[in-house]
Amino acid sequence: MNIIPPRTGTAFILKKGERLKVYDIQGEQVSDFICFNEHNPKEYLSSGRTIDYEETIFLTKGNKFYSNQSNVMFIMEEDTVGRHDFLLTPCSADTFRIIYGDKNPHRGCFGNLSEALAPYGITPDQIPICFNIFMNVSVDGQSGKVGVHPPLSKANDYVIIEAQMDLIVGMTACSAEMSNNYSFKPIGYERLNQS
Amino acid sequence: MNIIPPRTGTAFILKKGERLKVYDIQGEQVSDFICFNEHNPKEYLSSGRTIDYEETIFLTKGNKFYSNQSNVMFIMEEDTVGRHDFLLTPCSADTFRIIYGDKNPHRGCFGNLSEALAPYGITPDQIPICFNIFMNVSVDGQSGKVGVHPPLSKANDYVIIEAQMDLIVGMTACSAEMSNNYSFKPIGYERLNQS
Repeated sequence: MNIIPPRTGTAFILKKGERLKVYDIQGEQVSDFICFNEHNPKEYLSSGRTIDYEETIFLTKGNKFYSNQSNVMFIMEEDTVGRHDFLLTPCSADTFRIIYGDKNPHRGCFGNLSEALAPYGITPDQIPICFNIFMNVSVDGQSGKVGVHPPLSKANDYVIIEAQMDLIVGMTACSAEMSNNYSFKPIGYERLNQS
Repeated sequence: MNIIPPRTGTAFILKKGERLKVYDIQGEQVSDFICFNEHNPKEYLSSGRTIDYEETIFLTKGNKFYSNQSNVMFIMEEDTVGRHDFLLTPCSADTFRIIYGDKNPHRGCFGNLSEALAPYGITPDQIPICFNIFMNVSVDGQSGKVGVHPPLSKANDYVIIEAQMDLIVGMTACSAEMSNNYSFKPIGYERLNQS
């Protein structure tokens, strides 16, 4: 198993047909996940297309995840938690400044993804809304109010996705206090054999 | 007042401090709205940043709308309806193929925005989730299920926004059956004096 240390990120290639297992090693830890078409990085994971076609904001086992070009990028095969977020953008220095009032803010998942994805030619402005694995965001259907709560994931919970095209993947161990119940923990991941 | 005919789109510059009034002329008609920083089109309206900072999926009077770079692009000053969508991407030929099963699909708001924004150097892959004015999308907070319903807007309902930076604006009279209670109507807009 590969480890993403607390408040850091990584990037790698996941080929079509490969499966990726993402672990919450200690529990209550979010991983911001984003992907791009390896052969055309202008094609990226789209929350708007996915929520539209799958007709839910809570994606889980069996759901397809679409690109901005309406192609399926991956399918979720297993999910021991059942609650992830696909509404919010990665935490960033601006997030910490605007929401937390930090004067010397951490660069957040956005900064970590920017650095990890740079070798693949992805610029910061190309990083869209991520699929925030294990993140627990509530929506009040009447008022629209959004709340960020401790993840429902416990130690060793996981998801498995299967790539439907060759992907550049960016992933983090999330850096935002509220999203991770105020402690920063690692995230684990490994490639599984092709299904 | 300028008119956007049914199932078409337009684009124009809205300078900092200018106010834009968007009318639902006949009622129950959606307008997909997107904007970019005129001086750096890689900076664009971000649903993820806006929902995060404003803590709601239902944006209305008083809400600030943020870019992917966490700058305020515009503020909503008036809103006679109070229900708009910021979750879903513009309808497209793929939408009509995937959701409606159309064999010769209309190009939708995505195609209309792509054509209208091309003279400003915006490519189709740069069109993100739009702010869908007057669109009525419900979210079940328990299941996450998303539903598309007839707009709550009646004839002559409107919103007014004020630009906080020089903007390239793209707007449509939406082309999707479900979003507009199965009839395609025009959208009106006009610039107001600076506030």
